Order: sequence, then structure tokens, then C-alpha cells
Amino acid sequence: MTSQDIEPEQDIAPRQDALSAETQTALERAEASHRHEALFSERAHNIKQSAVRDVFDISIRPGLISLAGGSPSLSELPLDVVAATASRVIAKHGMEALHYGGGKGTPELRELVCEIMAEEGILGASPEDVVVTTGSQSAQDIAAKVFCNPGDVVLVEDPTYVGALNTFEAYQVQVEPVLMDENGLIPEQLEARITELEAAGKRIKLLYTIPSFNNPSGVTLAAERRQRVVDICSAHNILILEDNPYGMLRFDGHPLTPLRADNPDDVVYCGSFSKIFSPGVRLGWALVPKHLYRRFYLAAEAVVLCPSMLTQMLVTEFFRTFDWRSYLAESRRVYAERCTAMLESLAEEFPAETVWTTPSGGFFVWVTLPAGIDTYPLLYQAIEAGVVFIPGAAFTPWDGRSSKLRLAFSGVAPERIREGVRRLGPVIRAAVEANAG
Amino acid sequence: MTSQDIEPEQDIAPRQDALSAETQTALERAEASHRHEALFSERAHNIKQSAVRDVFDISIRPGLISLAGGSPSLSELPLDVVAATASRVIAKHGMEALHYGGGKGTPELRELVCEIMAEEGILGASPEDVVVTTGSQSAQDIAAKVFCNPGDVVLVEDPTYVGALNTFEAYQVQVEPVLMDENGLIPEQLEARITELEAAGKRIKLLYTIPSFNNPSGVTLAAERRQRVVDICSAHNILILEDNPYGMLRFDGHPLTPLRADNPDDVVYCGSFSKIFSPGVRLGWALVPKHLYRRFYLAAEAVVLCPSMLTQMLVTEFFRTFDWRSYLAESRRVYAERCTAMLESLAEEFPAETVWTTPSGGFFVWVTLPAGIDTYPLLYQAIEAGVVFIPGAAFTPWDGRSSKLRLAFSGVAPERIREGVRRLGPVIRAAVEANAG
Repeated sequence: MTSQDIEPEQDIAPRQDALSAETQTALERAEASHRHEALFSERAHNIKQSAVRDVFDISIRPGLISLAGGSPSLSELPLDVVAATASRVIAKHGMEALHYGGGKGTPELRELVCEIMAEEGILGASPEDVVVTTGSQSAQDIAAKVFCNPGDVVLVEDPTYVGALNTFEAYQVQVEPVLMDENGLIPEQLEARITELEAAGKRIKLLYTIPSFNNPSGVTLAAERRQRVVDICSAHNILILEDNPYGMLRFDGHPLTPLRADNPDDVVYCGSFSKIFSPGVRLGWALVPKHLYRRFYLAAEAVVLCPSMLTQMLVTEFFRTFDWRSYLAESRRVYAERCTAMLESLAEEFPAETVWTTPSGGFFVWVTLPAGIDTYPLLYQAIEAGVVFIPGAAFTPWDGRSSKLRLAFSGVAPERIREGVRRLGPVIRAAVEANAG
Repeated sequence: MTSQDIEPEQDIAPRQDALSAETQTALERAEASHRHEALFSERAHNIKQSAVRDVFDISIRPGLISLAGGSPSLSELPLDVVAATASRVIAKHGMEALHYGGGKGTPELRELVCEIMAEEGILGASPEDVVVTTGSQSAQDIAAKVFCNPGDVVLVEDPTYVGALNTFEAYQVQVEPVLMDENGLIPEQLEARITELEAAGKRIKLLYTIPSFNNPSGVTLAAERRQRVVDICSAHNILILEDNPYGMLRFDGHPLTPLRADNPDDVVYCGSFSKIFSPGVRLGWALVPKHLYRRFYLAAEAVVLCPSMLTQMLVTEFFRTFDWRSYLAESRRVYAERCTAMLESLAEEFPAETVWTTPSGGFFVWVTLPAGIDTYPLLYQAIEAGVVFIPGAAFTPWDGRSSKLRLAFSGVAPERIREGVRRLGPVIRAAVEANAG
């Protein structure tokens, strides 16, 4: 495979421009030239267009195989049942479902959330400690709002969820990544980083972690490290923000015990209906330590008044009348199959110089190319080849180069995954060859 | 009427406690005593339980007539049609409706929003300048986030919407009320206040205004004052945040032209589906000047990723297939009738020493009692009498006493409004007599 197989980059760049960068630049010009520019808050300058958003815009092009977005597979959802459930909720309880609700979410949904968390290993959680949020993104926004002054430090895994980075940066937080290995966060690295930052006079407020099937790496924090991570944070009075949207999607069907389970005082736990049911309902939740609950939910109210009653009641009714445990078992089977398809085709198509993670659940595989390769420019070549991924740089607080990339297997059928990796193979091989040469 | 008609206050207080204050106090104690207390951000200390929330909790008691919450009347909504629409959207377009969407909202809903705004007098707005938000509360949160540093000033009407006060205070904004008369904001007062604040070195970022049927006062900014208000703000480089949830609900059917109409560069306009369709879908929007759009929508994404696709598609399909103009005409008739019921019973039941506004649209009547009376303690007496209102103090940034109160006629049938005012009459008369004596 030679570089002639790849379209010249100048043909690609304008197409990308046409999709978002051109409008982007025009808007930036307009905002800089206006007398209102002085009105922006300091934090507004920290709010950036994410590389992921660019890619989402591009992914809409027909024919392209997107291994970019972490989209759940909805094809196993019985749409007729969901439709009938929505219809029933509105016809029977419309005066409630179409109305305002309480800021904490409905008692019925908070009860359901506690049952779901019990399946994950969080036993005895009280609905009184749950705040239903507009997706778990909103829970992260609220956590940042309630806990972080500008300049405060939030520790994150390296790499971590790009949406959380955007949220923290919007609050002018200093985000500090902590190294992971194949068993997740390295406790010694965590402790060393904390000591270092404290010595520099930094105020560390939160550890934001996705311990199970990390986004983007797919890596899981080993069971034997979990309590150690909590203890280190606790000793330094650092609160843990545990983001566990994929917890129920461990391929073998046995969720790993969340950090929150044995540590009710030290962990704000975030869950989501986006991966186990539907992102379109925009519902997540936070399980909040009692001593932090009041301000958390008041802040939630100040942001959205209340979550949607309609989608809350739809989700509650659906989970109460549908065999969601069997549905999740089927989802796990589907994701495991897709993951296998991706791992197998990576082994076939990617050169020996590349390595990747082997997730035991979740949505993502994380690929590492040889040092010296920047995956961002490769994205344009991949688009030309008909496939999209997300460059690794998106998942760290730095804007620098990254030799990593994220591939999502969750939302694409196995044969399309194989085709997508097949399209990507030549791009990667050429980059590896050019880098070696 | 003597004070014997009112239950003794000691019987009331514990009941109020049992509903929320007791839990509240326990939570406050727990948070203050925990080592995590040091983790709260500075802004978290500005996030408070609102008096309105207390009242909402109380309102749930059976038999009580609530003139407190600004709830839309949903009884004219054809629930069967809404149910069938939701069912159709999910059955036919479920893979899209149950999925993630773009951060700006769907193009179809943004198109619809522009048509609705055109009916209000905002002509030629582009869907490209609209951000769909999770209720218009979320638009206010985003505006505060994007424009306000701690200590910046936001001007508001006196009185103003309590939810906006909560939002601004959560960003440590200095909220400065400007006096209104029966024709809304007084331009001379606005200009004087700006001059005063600027002389004190304050940075004024926004004027937050509800020009039509202000919440809580029901007062409308006169047509001849509107451009003057914009010009004053523009001259001082102050952006206007125009909140217009009730604009389409002018009783005579002719919306007043919003400030935004002729001033596309100087106004961020907020609209909502909560009053014209359903609060349960949690959908509002912001029409943002081009030069401010990019940061506004990026901030929106950082808060919730995207608004609910399901409720967006439901609203779009409902408005596209249902005769919403006739429905709104019917809504206006219902609200006008309720307003009349309230004004008539106030005239019958309230003493001559009290005055109230005569709204030409919206949800609220604002009652002023003689100076010296504090309406907050009267609330407990009203609850004993079986009716709830919101004390005026909730609608200013001060915690002080207020001789005003807000009565909402929107969500209650005329005969219940009359009964509610009948129950409230003796409480008010006794207070006026005691104050005079």
C-alpha cells in the first residue's frame, strides 16, 4: 500500500471547511469585531468547539462509516412497545406528564434508579439521595458548578471523556490527567500527582473517573485497585465523581462493583439511561452523599427547573412493564459481538506496529500508533477513505498531538465495522510506513 | 372578620416544617459538619432554596387551592392527539427520536420556532440563529454562564421572575432591580440606575426583562417605551435578555412586538413551549445575535449535550399536524376568563386599602397591600385557610419584607379561583386591619 491510495490532502481540507470550519471562522470574526465582545465572561473564552463535534458534523455524509460517535445500538429496542408506552403515559397521565415536575425528579423514577444501581452493586441507596438530571452530562455540569472555583483542579483519567473536559473547562477548572495502564488508574500515579499539585498550592476538588470501560480507552479499573483509589482521594479530601454509563454493559453480564458501593460519603455517582435505553430521552441521575445533596439539587433546579416529566414517566413506565433485564442481556450480546468484530478486523487490517485495548464492556477500543504519528491529520485521509474515527487529542486537556485514536463499535453492525476497519487499514499502514521511513 | 377566623400560627408552623424545613435543616447541618464542606465552590453558597419551592411543596396538600404556581392550563390540550403524535413519532422515526441529536436542536424545530416568532412580530429570523434549550430556564443559565463574571451586574425588573434570580445568583452576579410603573420599566429609572452603577465602577452585562405580562406583576412594557429601553442599553453596551414566554398569550390575540424584532444585534430573545404547549417537554429556545451565537451554543452543548430529540420531534410533529393557532386562541380565551374571575373576586373580597394590576395577558396578578404589612407570614395563615400564594419577597434579590403578593390565575378553573380568593380575603382583611390599628 502506497500513499497513492490516499486522496491528496488539499482535496479533503475544503470539504471539511465547507461543513463547519468556514461558518465557524465567520462566526469567530463576527464576534471579535463586535462591541459586544467585551461582554463575554472569562469562562466563555474557555468554551471551545470540540474536535468531536467537527467529526459528528462530518459523519452525516452519506456512505461514510462512523466509528466516531459513542452511539448506543437502538436496533434491538422494540419501537412499537416504546410507542405504545408513550401513548399510554400521555393518554392516561398526560396532565401530569406534560406538566412541570419537582427538581429532584419523580419519586417513581428515583425508585427505579435505585433498583438499577442495586443490580450494579450499589445496595440500599435511597431515592431521597438521587437527583434526576437532563442526561449525565448535566450532572457533571452541576458538579463542576457546585464544587469548582476558577483555578481549582479536577483530576481525570488520561484519556477521558471529551464532554466532561468541555464541561470542566467551561468553569475555568484546571484539568489534570492521571496516567492509566491496562488496569485503569494507577494508584501510585494518582497519589504522586496529588502530592505534586498540593505542593504547588493547588486546590484539588474532584477526581472525575469512568472506572468501567473508560471512554475513550475501554479500560477498566481493576477490582483490587478500586478501594485504594477511593482511600487516596478521601485522605486528601478529594471528592470522587464516578461516571458509570456503561456499567451494566459488561459483556459477561456481571457489572463490576462501583466505587460508590462501599463509599457512600465520598462518591457522587452518575448514571445514565442513554446507554441502557435511549439518549433521546435525555435522562441521567446523580446519587449524591447526603451532606452534599441539598446544594446539588438546588443547583440542578437553577439550571433546568426540572427534568422532562414526559420522558421521566415514559422511562419509568417502560422499565416497569418491559423485561428490561432481558433487553440488557441482549444489548450486552450485541455489543460483545461488535467488539469482537472490531478486534478481529483490527488484527487483520492494522500493522504490527499498532496496539489496541481489549475492552470487557462498553463502547470503545483505543488504538495506539507508533510515537511520532499525529492522528488528527489522518482523520481527513480516513474521511476520504469513507470512515471516521476520533483523534486521541480530543480526550486530553491539551491541544497537542496524539498518536492515539478512538474507535467506537457500539452503534455499527458487525459487517459495517469490518468494512470500516478495512477502509481505515490503508490509512494507518501508510502513516506507520511514512513514520518509519 | 376577626382574627378568630384564622387558625393560630403555632398550628401552622409545624405543618410547614414537616413538609420541607425539617429535612432542609437536617441537610444543612449535615453539610456544614462534613469535611467536604470546604469543597463547595464560592458560587454554591449563592445557591439557595427559594420561597417558591417551599410553596410548591406545600401546594401538594389535598384541598388546598394553589394560586401560587405559574402553571399553564393543560385541560384544553387534546391528550389523545398528543398521545397519537408521540406514538407515531416513535414508531416511524424512533431510531432518530430516541437518539442523540445536534447541540443546536433539530433544523425542523428551529424552523418552527422562527414561524412562531414571526407571529409575535419577529420577522425574518433565521433557524441558524436559534438554539433549542431545555426549557427557557436553561437559556438564562447559559446566558449567565457566557456573559457574567462574578460581581458583574445584571439589571432586572422590580419585581422579576424568581427562577432567573436563582440562576443569576448561582453565577455570583450582582442583580440590580429597576423600578416599573403600570407601563413597565421606566426608561428614566433605567438610565439613572445605569449611570449610578457605572459611576460606582460596576460592569453591567445584561438587562433581563419580561416585557410582556411580567412574572410576577402581569405588567407590560408599553409599546412607546420599548425602543427607548433598547437604545439606552445599547448606548451603554448592555445586552438585553428578553424573556417572552407569555407573548402569544395576550388576551386580545395580538402579540406586542418584542424588543428583539427591530434590534437583532442587541437582544438575546428567549421563547418557550411551556406556556403555549407543555412544560413537560422541557423545550425553550434562544434567538441569538450572530456575533454571539457560537459561544452560546457551545455553552449549551457543554451543559446538556443536546436537547431531547424525542420531545423536539414530538413538538414539531404536533405543531405541524395540529391547528395550534386555534388552540392558542382557545388558550387565550381560557386565560382571559380566569383573569376576569380573579379580578372580579379581588374586587369583591379584598379591602379598599389593597391595589392590584390588571394584566392584558399572561398568568399573574400582583397585589399590593398597605406599607408595613409583610406578606410572608400571611402565607401560613392563607395555608390554614386553604389557599396558597407567593409572597412578594421571592421576586426581588433582597431577602427583606414585602407588602406584595403574586396570584396566578393560569392553572385554576374560574370557580376555584373565586373560592381561593374568597378564602384569602379574610386573611388579607385581618392583616390590613391589624396594620391600621
